[in-house]
Amino acid sequence: MQIVGELINASRKKIRNEIKEKNYDAIVQVARDQHEHGADFIDVNAGIFVGQEADYVKWLVQTVQENVDTPCCIDTPDPAVLEEAVKVHKGTPMLNSISLEKDRYEKMLPMVSGKDMRVIALCMSDEGMPYTKDDRMKIASKLINNLVQKNVPLDNIYVDPLVQPIGSGDRFGVEFLNTIEALNREFEGVHTICGLSNISYGIPKRKFANQTFMIMAITKGLDSAILNPLDKRMMASITAAETLMGKDPFCEKYVTAYRESAFEF
Amino acid sequence: MQIVGELINASRKKIRNEIKEKNYDAIVQVARDQHEHGADFIDVNAGIFVGQEADYVKWLVQTVQENVDTPCCIDTPDPAVLEEAVKVHKGTPMLNSISLEKDRYEKMLPMVSGKDMRVIALCMSDEGMPYTKDDRMKIASKLINNLVQKNVPLDNIYVDPLVQPIGSGDRFGVEFLNTIEALNREFEGVHTICGLSNISYGIPKRKFANQTFMIMAITKGLDSAILNPLDKRMMASITAAETLMGKDPFCEKYVTAYRESAFEF
Repeated sequence: MQIVGELINASRKKIRNEIKEKNYDAIVQVARDQHEHGADFIDVNAGIFVGQEADYVKWLVQTVQENVDTPCCIDTPDPAVLEEAVKVHKGTPMLNSISLEKDRYEKMLPMVSGKDMRVIALCMSDEGMPYTKDDRMKIASKLINNLVQKNVPLDNIYVDPLVQPIGSGDRFGVEFLNTIEALNREFEGVHTICGLSNISYGIPKRKFANQTFMIMAITKGLDSAILNPLDKRMMASITAAETLMGKDPFCEKYVTAYRESAFEF
Repeated sequence: MQIVGELINASRKKIRNEIKEKNYDAIVQVARDQHEHGADFIDVNAGIFVGQEADYVKWLVQTVQENVDTPCCIDTPDPAVLEEAVKVHKGTPMLNSISLEKDRYEKMLPMVSGKDMRVIALCMSDEGMPYTKDDRMKIASKLINNLVQKNVPLDNIYVDPLVQPIGSGDRFGVEFLNTIEALNREFEGVHTICGLSNISYGIPKRKFANQTFMIMAITKGLDSAILNPLDKRMMASITAAETLMGKDPFCEKYVTAYRESAFEF
Protein backbone atom coordinates (compact mmCIF):
# COMPACT_ATOMS: atom_id res chain seq x y z
CA MET A 1 0.00 0.00 0.00
CA GLN A 2 1.22 3.49 -0.89
CA ILE A 3 0.83 5.94 1.99
CA VAL A 4 0.55 9.71 1.60
CA GLY A 5 1.36 11.31 4.98
CA GLU A 6 -1.22 14.02 5.58
CA LEU A 7 0.20 15.91 8.56
CA ILE A 8 1.91 18.89 6.89
CA ASN A 9 -1.33 20.71 6.23
CA ALA A 10 -1.87 24.36 7.14
CA SER A 11 -5.46 23.67 8.13
CA ARG A 12 -3.96 22.10 11.28
CA LYS A 13 -3.38 24.92 13.76
CA LYS A 14 0.05 23.86 14.98
CA ILE A 15 1.35 23.31 11.47
CA ARG A 16 -0.15 26.60 10.31
CA ASN A 17 2.02 28.43 12.85
CA GLU A 18 5.16 26.45 11.95
CA ILE A 19 4.65 27.27 8.29
CA LYS A 20 3.93 30.92 8.94
CA GLU A 21 7.17 31.26 10.90
CA LYS A 22 9.04 28.99 8.46
CA ASN A 23 10.11 26.88 11.41
CA TYR A 24 12.49 24.59 9.53
CA ASP A 25 13.24 22.12 12.34
CA ALA A 26 9.57 21.59 13.20
CA ILE A 27 8.59 20.80 9.60
CA VAL A 28 11.61 18.50 9.18
CA GLN A 29 10.56 16.61 12.30
CA VAL A 30 7.01 16.04 11.05
CA ALA A 31 8.30 14.93 7.64
CA ARG A 32 10.84 12.55 9.20
CA ASP A 33 8.32 11.07 11.62
CA GLN A 34 5.91 10.32 8.81
CA HIS A 35 8.61 8.85 6.57
CA GLU A 36 9.94 6.63 9.37
CA HIS A 37 6.42 5.36 10.02
CA GLY A 38 5.80 4.36 6.42
CA ALA A 39 4.85 7.43 4.34
CA ASP A 40 5.79 7.01 0.67
CA PHE A 41 4.76 10.61 -0.12
CA ILE A 42 4.65 13.69 2.11
CA ASP A 43 1.61 15.88 1.46
CA VAL A 44 2.32 19.63 1.64
CA ASN A 45 -0.55 22.08 1.92
CA ALA A 46 -0.40 25.82 2.57
CA GLY A 47 -3.79 26.60 1.10
CA ILE A 48 -4.93 29.04 3.74
CA PHE A 49 -2.13 31.53 3.02
CA VAL A 50 -3.79 33.47 0.23
CA GLY A 51 -1.24 35.25 -1.93
CA GLN A 52 1.68 33.51 -0.21
CA GLU A 53 0.72 29.91 -0.97
CA ALA A 54 3.30 29.43 -3.76
CA ASP A 55 6.12 30.76 -1.60
CA TYR A 56 5.20 28.55 1.36
CA VAL A 57 4.63 25.40 -0.71
CA LYS A 58 8.03 25.83 -2.41
CA TRP A 59 9.65 26.24 1.00
CA LEU A 60 7.84 23.14 2.28
CA VAL A 61 8.90 21.01 -0.69
CA GLN A 62 12.53 22.10 -0.27
CA THR A 63 12.49 21.67 3.50
CA VAL A 64 11.02 18.18 3.26
CA GLN A 65 13.28 16.99 0.44
CA GLU A 66 16.48 18.36 1.97
CA ASN A 67 15.91 15.92 4.82
CA VAL A 68 13.76 13.03 3.69
CA ASP A 69 14.24 10.98 0.53
CA THR A 70 10.57 11.02 -0.44
CA PRO A 71 8.50 12.70 -3.13
CA CYS A 72 5.92 15.26 -2.08
CA CYS A 73 2.22 15.35 -2.76
CA ILE A 74 1.54 18.95 -3.76
CA ASP A 75 -1.85 19.75 -2.33
CA THR A 76 -3.26 22.78 -4.09
CA PRO A 77 -6.14 23.79 -6.36
CA ASP A 78 -3.96 26.53 -7.94
CA PRO A 79 -1.98 25.65 -11.10
CA ALA A 80 0.43 28.56 -10.48
CA VAL A 81 1.32 27.14 -7.06
CA LEU A 82 1.80 23.70 -8.60
CA GLU A 83 4.06 25.14 -11.31
CA GLU A 84 6.31 26.85 -8.76
CA ALA A 85 6.44 23.77 -6.51
CA VAL A 86 7.33 21.43 -9.36
CA LYS A 87 10.32 23.63 -10.26
CA VAL A 88 12.03 22.86 -6.95
CA HIS A 89 10.74 19.28 -6.55
CA LYS A 90 13.19 16.38 -6.95
CA GLY A 91 11.86 13.16 -8.50
CA THR A 92 8.25 12.50 -9.49
CA PRO A 93 5.75 14.60 -7.52
CA MET A 94 2.12 13.78 -6.91
CA LEU A 95 -0.61 16.37 -7.52
CA ASN A 96 -3.53 16.55 -5.12
CA SER A 97 -5.77 16.94 -7.15
CA ILE A 98 -7.61 17.18 -10.43
CA SER A 99 -11.38 16.65 -10.74
CA LEU A 100 -14.10 16.98 -13.37
CA GLU A 101 -15.17 20.36 -11.99
CA LYS A 102 -14.80 22.54 -15.05
CA ASP A 103 -12.61 25.22 -13.55
CA ARG A 104 -10.18 22.87 -11.80
CA TYR A 105 -10.17 20.45 -14.70
CA GLU A 106 -9.31 23.04 -17.36
CA LYS A 107 -6.61 24.65 -15.26
CA MET A 108 -4.95 21.44 -14.05
CA LEU A 109 -5.10 19.25 -17.15
CA PRO A 110 -2.37 21.16 -19.06
CA MET A 111 -0.19 21.00 -15.92
CA VAL A 112 -0.13 17.20 -15.87
CA SER A 113 -0.39 16.24 -19.55
CA GLY A 114 2.76 14.54 -20.69
CA LYS A 115 4.54 15.43 -17.43
CA ASP A 116 6.36 13.06 -15.12
CA MET A 117 3.73 13.49 -12.42
CA ARG A 118 1.38 11.33 -10.41
CA VAL A 119 -2.11 12.75 -10.03
CA ILE A 120 -5.02 12.22 -7.69
CA ALA A 121 -8.27 12.27 -9.70
CA LEU A 122 -11.27 13.15 -7.53
CA CYS A 123 -14.67 11.73 -8.51
CA MET A 124 -16.26 15.16 -8.34
CA SER A 125 -17.98 17.20 -11.02
CA ASP A 126 -19.96 20.42 -11.21
CA GLU A 127 -23.09 18.37 -10.62
CA GLY A 128 -21.97 17.90 -7.01
CA MET A 129 -20.94 14.89 -4.97
CA PRO A 130 -21.83 11.57 -6.61
CA TYR A 131 -23.95 9.15 -4.58
CA THR A 132 -23.92 5.73 -6.27
CA LYS A 133 -21.11 3.60 -7.62
CA ASP A 134 -22.42 4.23 -11.13
CA ASP A 135 -22.31 8.01 -10.67
CA ARG A 136 -18.74 7.73 -9.43
CA MET A 137 -17.71 5.43 -12.25
CA LYS A 138 -19.08 7.87 -14.85
CA ILE A 139 -16.84 10.63 -13.51
CA ALA A 140 -13.89 8.31 -12.98
CA SER A 141 -14.13 6.92 -16.52
CA LYS A 142 -14.11 10.38 -18.05
CA LEU A 143 -11.17 11.50 -15.92
CA ILE A 144 -9.13 8.37 -16.58
CA ASN A 145 -9.80 8.36 -20.32
CA ASN A 146 -9.02 12.06 -20.67
CA LEU A 147 -5.81 11.78 -18.64
CA VAL A 148 -4.64 8.75 -20.62
CA GLN A 149 -5.33 10.65 -23.88
CA LYS A 150 -3.11 13.41 -22.52
CA ASN A 151 -0.29 10.91 -22.08
CA VAL A 152 -0.66 10.34 -18.36
CA PRO A 153 0.00 6.58 -17.86
CA LEU A 154 -2.53 4.58 -15.80
CA ASP A 155 0.18 3.90 -13.24
CA ASN A 156 0.37 7.65 -12.52
CA ILE A 157 -3.39 8.01 -11.92
CA TYR A 158 -4.81 7.66 -8.40
CA VAL A 159 -8.61 7.73 -8.45
CA ASP A 160 -10.27 8.99 -5.26
CA PRO A 161 -13.98 7.95 -5.28
CA LEU A 162 -14.60 10.32 -2.33
CA VAL A 163 -15.69 9.06 1.04
CA GLN A 164 -18.89 10.52 2.47
CA PRO A 165 -20.16 10.13 6.06
CA ILE A 166 -22.07 6.92 6.81
CA GLY A 167 -24.10 8.99 9.25
CA SER A 168 -25.61 10.97 6.38
CA GLY A 169 -26.36 8.00 4.10
CA ASP A 170 -26.51 4.29 4.95
CA ARG A 171 -25.13 3.32 1.55
CA PHE A 172 -22.19 5.75 1.41
CA GLY A 173 -19.81 3.05 2.65
CA VAL A 174 -20.89 0.31 0.30
CA GLU A 175 -21.14 2.58 -2.77
CA PHE A 176 -17.56 3.68 -2.13
CA LEU A 177 -16.37 0.10 -1.67
CA ASN A 178 -18.14 -1.05 -4.83
CA THR A 179 -16.47 1.79 -6.74
CA ILE A 180 -13.02 0.62 -5.62
CA GLU A 181 -13.90 -2.89 -6.83
CA ALA A 182 -15.24 -1.64 -10.18
CA LEU A 183 -12.19 0.57 -10.79
CA ASN A 184 -9.85 -2.39 -10.26
CA ARG A 185 -11.95 -4.56 -12.56
CA GLU A 186 -12.47 -2.04 -15.37
CA PHE A 187 -9.15 -0.15 -15.31
CA GLU A 188 -6.50 -2.69 -14.44
CA GLY A 189 -3.35 -0.89 -13.38
CA VAL A 190 -4.96 2.33 -12.16
CA HIS A 191 -4.45 3.17 -8.49
CA THR A 192 -7.19 3.92 -6.01
CA ILE A 193 -6.72 6.32 -3.11
CA CYS A 194 -8.74 8.06 -0.45
CA GLY A 195 -8.67 10.03 2.73
CA LEU A 196 -11.20 7.94 4.57
CA SER A 197 -11.78 9.71 7.88
CA ASN A 198 -14.92 11.40 6.49
CA ILE A 199 -16.71 8.05 6.74
CA SER A 200 -17.05 8.41 10.52
CA TYR A 201 -18.02 12.08 10.65
CA GLY A 202 -20.85 12.45 13.17
CA ILE A 203 -20.71 8.96 14.71
CA PRO A 204 -18.92 7.90 17.91
CA LYS A 205 -15.64 5.91 18.07
CA ARG A 206 -14.39 7.50 14.89
CA LYS A 207 -10.92 5.93 14.94
CA PHE A 208 -12.35 2.44 15.31
CA ALA A 209 -14.80 3.04 12.45
CA ASN A 210 -11.99 4.44 10.28
CA GLN A 211 -9.74 1.41 10.87
CA THR A 212 -12.63 -0.92 10.12
CA PHE A 213 -13.41 0.93 6.90
CA MET A 214 -9.75 0.85 5.84
CA ILE A 215 -9.69 -2.95 6.21
CA MET A 216 -12.89 -3.17 4.14
CA ALA A 217 -11.47 -0.92 1.41
CA ILE A 218 -8.26 -2.99 1.20
CA THR A 219 -10.45 -6.09 0.84
CA LYS A 220 -12.01 -4.46 -2.23
CA GLY A 221 -8.62 -3.51 -3.68
CA LEU A 222 -7.71 -0.04 -2.34
CA ASP A 223 -3.94 0.31 -2.84
CA SER A 224 -3.15 3.85 -1.61
CA ALA A 225 -4.34 6.16 1.16
CA ILE A 226 -3.91 9.65 2.54
CA LEU A 227 -3.60 9.36 6.30
CA ASN A 228 -1.60 9.94 9.46
CA PRO A 229 1.16 7.31 9.46
CA LEU A 230 1.74 7.92 13.18
CA ASP A 231 -1.67 6.33 13.90
CA LYS A 232 -0.29 2.97 15.03
CA ARG A 233 -3.57 1.11 15.09
CA MET A 234 -4.45 2.27 11.58
CA MET A 235 -1.04 1.21 10.28
CA ALA A 236 -1.35 -2.16 12.04
CA SER A 237 -4.79 -2.65 10.47
CA ILE A 238 -3.26 -2.03 7.03
CA THR A 239 -0.41 -4.48 7.69
CA ALA A 240 -2.78 -7.20 8.90
CA ALA A 241 -5.27 -6.69 6.06
CA GLU A 242 -2.57 -6.82 3.38
CA THR A 243 -1.08 -9.97 4.91
CA LEU A 244 -4.51 -11.61 4.93
CA MET A 245 -5.05 -10.54 1.31
CA GLY A 246 -2.03 -12.66 0.35
CA LYS A 247 0.31 -9.72 -0.31
CA ASP A 248 2.91 -10.61 2.31
CA PRO A 249 4.91 -13.74 1.46
CA PHE A 250 5.51 -15.89 4.54
CA CYS A 251 3.87 -13.16 6.70
CA GLU A 252 7.28 -11.50 6.78
CA LYS A 253 6.04 -7.90 6.94
CA TYR A 254 3.49 -8.85 9.58
CA VAL A 255 6.02 -10.58 11.80
CA THR A 256 8.58 -7.79 11.30
CA ALA A 257 5.97 -5.19 12.22
CA TYR A 258 5.18 -7.20 15.34
CA ARG A 259 8.88 -7.38 16.31
CA GLU A 260 9.16 -3.64 15.80
CA SER A 261 6.26 -3.09 18.24
CA ALA A 262 3.84 -1.94 15.54
CA PHE A 263 1.03 -3.83 17.27
CA GLU A 264 1.63 -2.24 20.67
CA PHE A 265 -1.11 0.32 21.20
CA MET B 1 -25.09 -11.44 11.26
CA GLN B 2 -26.10 -14.72 12.86
CA ILE B 3 -23.82 -15.67 15.73
CA VAL B 4 -23.26 -19.23 16.97
CA GLY B 5 -21.80 -19.03 20.50
CA GLU B 6 -18.96 -21.53 20.67
CA LEU B 7 -18.17 -21.69 24.38
CA ILE B 8 -20.08 -24.81 25.50
CA ASN B 9 -17.54 -27.22 24.03
CA ALA B 10 -16.08 -30.12 25.97
CA SER B 11 -12.69 -29.60 24.35
CA ARG B 12 -12.37 -26.60 26.69
CA LYS B 13 -11.06 -27.92 29.99
CA LYS B 14 -13.30 -25.92 32.32
CA ILE B 15 -16.42 -26.80 30.35
CA ARG B 16 -15.39 -30.46 30.16
CA ASN B 17 -15.46 -30.63 33.95
CA GLU B 18 -18.79 -28.79 34.21
CA ILE B 19 -20.34 -31.21 31.72
CA LYS B 20 -18.85 -34.26 33.39
CA GLU B 21 -20.35 -33.20 36.72
CA LYS B 22 -23.57 -32.00 35.05
CA ASN B 23 -23.08 -28.66 36.78
CA TYR B 24 -26.41 -27.12 35.79
CA ASP B 25 -25.78 -23.59 37.09
CA ALA B 26 -22.41 -23.29 35.39
CA ILE B 27 -23.74 -24.31 31.97
CA VAL B 28 -26.76 -22.02 32.36
CA GLN B 29 -24.42 -19.13 33.11
CA VAL B 30 -22.31 -19.72 29.99
CA ALA B 31 -25.44 -20.04 27.85
CA ARG B 32 -26.97 -16.86 29.32
CA ASP B 33 -23.76 -14.86 28.94
CA GLN B 34 -23.50 -15.80 25.28
CA HIS B 35 -27.16 -15.07 24.57
CA GLU B 36 -26.99 -11.70 26.29
CA HIS B 37 -23.93 -10.79 24.23
CA GLY B 38 -25.58 -11.58 20.92
CA ALA B 39 -25.55 -15.36 20.29
CA ASP B 40 -28.44 -16.47 18.05
CA PHE B 41 -27.53 -20.17 18.52
CA ILE B 42 -25.74 -21.92 21.39
CA ASP B 43 -23.32 -24.59 20.20
CA VAL B 44 -23.26 -27.74 22.37
CA ASN B 45 -20.42 -30.22 22.05
CA ALA B 46 -19.62 -33.22 24.24
CA GLY B 47 -17.58 -35.06 21.65
CA ILE B 48 -14.82 -36.23 23.97
CA PHE B 49 -17.18 -38.32 26.13
CA VAL B 50 -17.11 -41.52 24.09
CA GLY B 51 -20.17 -43.66 24.80
CA GLN B 52 -21.81 -40.92 26.87
CA GLU B 53 -21.97 -38.23 24.20
CA ALA B 54 -25.71 -38.64 23.49
CA ASP B 55 -26.60 -38.44 27.16
CA TYR B 56 -24.50 -35.32 27.75
CA VAL B 57 -25.65 -33.55 24.59
CA LYS B 58 -29.31 -34.16 25.49
CA TRP B 59 -28.66 -32.78 28.96
CA LEU B 60 -26.90 -29.74 27.47
CA VAL B 61 -29.75 -29.00 25.05
CA GLN B 62 -32.31 -29.24 27.84
CA THR B 63 -30.22 -27.21 30.28
CA VAL B 64 -29.66 -24.44 27.75
CA GLN B 65 -33.25 -24.30 26.50
CA GLU B 66 -34.81 -24.34 29.96
CA ASN B 67 -33.08 -21.03 30.58
CA VAL B 68 -32.39 -19.29 27.31
CA ASP B 69 -34.84 -18.78 24.46
CA THR B 70 -32.40 -19.80 21.73
CA PRO B 71 -31.98 -22.77 19.42
CA CYS B 72 -28.91 -24.97 19.85
CA CYS B 73 -26.27 -25.89 17.34
CA ILE B 74 -25.76 -29.62 17.84
CA ASP B 75 -22.07 -30.21 17.31
CA THR B 76 -21.48 -33.90 16.63
CA PRO B 77 -20.26 -36.21 13.88
CA ASP B 78 -22.54 -38.99 15.19
CA PRO B 79 -26.06 -39.33 13.70
CA ALA B 80 -27.27 -41.26 16.77
CA VAL B 81 -26.26 -38.36 19.04
CA LEU B 82 -28.01 -35.93 16.70
CA GLU B 83 -31.17 -38.05 16.72
CA GLU B 84 -31.34 -38.11 20.51
CA ALA B 85 -30.61 -34.39 20.80
CA VAL B 86 -33.28 -33.43 18.27
CA LYS B 87 -35.91 -35.32 20.27
CA VAL B 88 -35.53 -32.92 23.23
CA HIS B 89 -34.78 -29.78 21.20
CA LYS B 90 -37.42 -27.01 21.00
CA GLY B 91 -37.67 -25.05 17.75
CA THR B 92 -35.36 -25.44 14.74
CA PRO B 93 -31.93 -26.80 15.66
CA MET B 94 -28.73 -26.35 13.68
CA LEU B 95 -26.47 -29.30 12.87
CA ASN B 96 -22.71 -28.85 13.01
CA SER B 97 -21.97 -30.43 10.51
CA ILE B 98 -22.27 -32.35 7.27
CA SER B 99 -19.44 -32.58 4.71
CA LEU B 100 -18.67 -34.43 1.49
CA GLU B 101 -16.54 -36.99 3.36
CA LYS B 102 -18.24 -40.22 2.38
CA ASP B 103 -18.81 -41.59 5.86
CA ARG B 104 -20.13 -38.39 7.41
CA TYR B 105 -22.12 -37.51 4.30
CA GLU B 106 -23.94 -40.85 4.07
CA LYS B 107 -24.74 -40.96 7.76
CA MET B 108 -25.87 -37.35 8.12
CA LEU B 109 -27.82 -36.78 4.89
CA PRO B 110 -30.84 -38.89 5.94
CA MET B 111 -30.87 -37.07 9.28
CA VAL B 112 -31.44 -33.67 7.67
CA SER B 113 -33.43 -34.47 4.53
CA GLY B 114 -36.87 -33.01 4.74
CA LYS B 115 -36.38 -32.09 8.40
CA ASP B 116 -36.90 -28.70 9.99
CA MET B 117 -33.20 -28.29 10.61
CA ARG B 118 -30.44 -25.83 9.75
CA VAL B 119 -27.18 -27.43 8.68
CA ILE B 120 -23.56 -26.36 8.46
CA ALA B 121 -22.04 -27.78 5.25
CA LEU B 122 -18.25 -28.05 5.48
CA CYS B 123 -16.22 -27.73 2.26
CA MET B 124 -14.34 -30.92 3.02
CA SER B 125 -14.16 -34.17 1.06
CA ASP B 126 -12.18 -37.40 1.25
CA GLU B 127 -9.60 -35.77 -0.98
CA GLY B 128 -8.55 -33.60 1.97
CA MET B 129 -8.67 -29.88 2.63
CA PRO B 130 -9.34 -27.80 -0.50
CA TYR B 131 -6.83 -25.06 -1.32
CA THR B 132 -8.29 -22.79 -4.00
CA LYS B 133 -11.64 -21.08 -4.33
CA ASP B 134 -12.45 -23.39 -7.24
CA ASP B 135 -11.74 -26.52 -5.17
CA ARG B 136 -13.98 -25.20 -2.41
CA MET B 137 -16.74 -24.26 -4.85
CA LYS B 138 -16.75 -27.76 -6.35
CA ILE B 139 -17.42 -29.29 -2.94
CA ALA B 140 -19.87 -26.56 -1.95
CA SER B 141 -21.85 -26.93 -5.18
CA LYS B 142 -22.24 -30.67 -4.70
CA LEU B 143 -23.27 -30.28 -1.08
CA ILE B 144 -25.75 -27.49 -1.78
CA ASN B 145 -27.31 -29.25 -4.77
CA ASN B 146 -27.61 -32.56 -2.94
CA LEU B 147 -29.13 -30.94 0.15
CA VAL B 148 -31.62 -28.96 -1.93
CA GLN B 149 -32.62 -32.17 -3.74
CA LYS B 150 -33.27 -33.69 -0.33
CA ASN B 151 -35.71 -30.86 0.45
CA VAL B 152 -33.38 -28.76 2.58
CA PRO B 153 -34.18 -25.14 1.64
CA LEU B 154 -31.25 -22.84 0.79
CA ASP B 155 -32.13 -20.69 3.80
CA ASN B 156 -31.33 -23.65 6.06
CA ILE B 157 -27.87 -24.27 4.54
CA TYR B 158 -24.80 -22.61 6.08
CA VAL B 159 -21.71 -23.26 3.94
CA ASP B 160 -18.39 -23.21 5.80
CA PRO B 161 -15.54 -22.86 3.26
CA LEU B 162 -13.02 -23.74 6.01
CA VAL B 163 -10.42 -21.30 7.20
CA GLN B 164 -6.78 -22.43 7.05
CA PRO B 165 -3.80 -20.68 8.68
CA ILE B 166 -2.30 -17.77 6.71
CA GLY B 167 1.05 -18.83 8.19
CA SER B 168 0.95 -22.08 6.21
CA GLY B 169 -0.16 -20.57 2.89
CA ASP B 170 -0.10 -16.92 1.76
CA ARG B 171 -3.26 -17.36 -0.28
CA PHE B 172 -5.38 -19.14 2.33
CA GLY B 173 -7.02 -15.85 3.35
CA VAL B 174 -7.87 -14.63 -0.11
CA GLU B 175 -9.05 -18.04 -1.39
CA PHE B 176 -11.46 -18.21 1.56
CA LEU B 177 -12.68 -14.66 0.95
CA ASN B 178 -13.19 -15.30 -2.76
CA THR B 179 -15.21 -18.42 -1.91
CA ILE B 180 -17.55 -16.37 0.28
CA GLU B 181 -18.01 -13.93 -2.60
CA ALA B 182 -18.63 -16.72 -5.14
CA LEU B 183 -21.14 -18.49 -2.89
CA ASN B 184 -23.17 -15.30 -2.52
CA ARG B 185 -23.07 -14.70 -6.26
CA GLU B 186 -23.86 -18.24 -7.40
CA PHE B 187 -26.25 -19.42 -4.66
CA GLU B 188 -28.29 -16.38 -3.69
CA GLY B 189 -30.02 -17.05 -0.39
CA VAL B 190 -27.54 -19.59 0.98
CA HIS B 191 -25.79 -18.64 4.22
CA THR B 192 -22.04 -18.60 4.74
CA ILE B 193 -20.46 -19.37 8.10
CA CYS B 194 -17.06 -20.03 9.61
CA GLY B 195 -15.04 -20.35 12.73
CA LEU B 196 -12.25 -18.07 11.71
CA SER B 197 -9.67 -18.27 14.46
CA ASN B 198 -7.64 -20.84 12.49
CA ILE B 199 -6.53 -18.02 10.18
CA SER B 200 -4.07 -16.73 12.79
CA TYR B 201 -2.68 -20.06 13.96
CA GLY B 202 1.09 -19.67 14.29
CA ILE B 203 1.34 -15.89 13.91
CA PRO B 204 1.51 -13.27 16.68
CA LYS B 205 -1.34 -10.98 17.75
CA ARG B 206 -3.94 -13.60 16.93
CA LYS B 207 -6.96 -11.68 18.21
CA PHE B 208 -6.09 -8.64 16.14
CA ALA B 209 -5.62 -10.79 13.02
CA ASN B 210 -8.93 -12.57 13.69
CA GLN B 211 -10.86 -9.31 14.03
CA THR B 212 -9.27 -7.99 10.85
CA PHE B 213 -10.17 -11.17 8.97
CA MET B 214 -13.76 -11.03 10.24
CA ILE B 215 -14.15 -7.51 8.86
CA MET B 216 -12.75 -8.69 5.52
CA ALA B 217 -15.10 -11.68 5.40
CA ILE B 218 -18.13 -9.46 6.13
CA THR B 219 -17.01 -7.20 3.30
CA LYS B 220 -17.21 -10.23 0.98
CA GLY B 221 -20.66 -11.21 2.29
CA LEU B 222 -20.14 -13.55 5.27
CA ASP B 223 -23.45 -13.53 7.18
CA SER B 224 -22.88 -16.01 10.06
CA ALA B 225 -20.03 -17.00 12.35
CA ILE B 226 -19.10 -19.41 15.11
CA LEU B 227 -17.28 -17.43 17.77
CA ASN B 228 -17.06 -16.28 21.36
CA PRO B 229 -19.69 -13.55 21.74
CA LEU B 230 -17.97 -12.35 24.92
CA ASP B 231 -15.03 -11.14 22.83
CA LYS B 232 -16.01 -7.46 22.91
CA ARG B 233 -13.57 -6.27 20.30
CA MET B 234 -14.65 -8.97 17.85
CA MET B 235 -18.32 -8.12 18.38
CA ALA B 236 -17.57 -4.39 17.97
CA SER B 237 -15.72 -5.17 14.73
CA ILE B 238 -18.79 -7.00 13.44
CA THR B 239 -21.11 -4.13 14.42
CA ALA B 240 -18.89 -1.54 12.75
CA ALA B 241 -18.39 -3.61 9.58
CA GLU B 242 -22.10 -4.29 9.16
CA THR B 243 -22.93 -0.61 9.68
CA LEU B 244 -20.35 0.36 7.04
CA MET B 245 -21.80 -2.27 4.68
CA GLY B 246 -25.10 -0.37 4.77
CA LYS B 247 -26.95 -2.92 6.91
CA ASP B 248 -27.72 -0.60 9.80
CA PRO B 249 -30.31 2.09 8.96
CA PHE B 250 -29.36 5.43 10.49
CA CYS B 251 -26.43 3.72 12.29
CA GLU B 252 -28.92 2.80 15.00
CA LYS B 253 -27.28 -0.49 16.01
CA TYR B 254 -23.86 1.14 16.00
CA VAL B 255 -24.93 4.02 18.22
CA THR B 256 -26.90 1.71 20.54
CA ALA B 257 -23.86 -0.57 20.87
CA TYR B 258 -21.77 2.48 21.72
CA ARG B 259 -24.25 3.62 24.38
CA GLU B 260 -24.23 0.11 25.85
CA SER B 261 -20.42 0.30 26.17
CA ALA B 262 -19.80 -2.27 23.41
CA PHE B 263 -16.81 -0.25 22.23
CA GLU B 264 -15.14 -0.08 25.65
CA PHE B 265 -12.25 -2.49 25.61
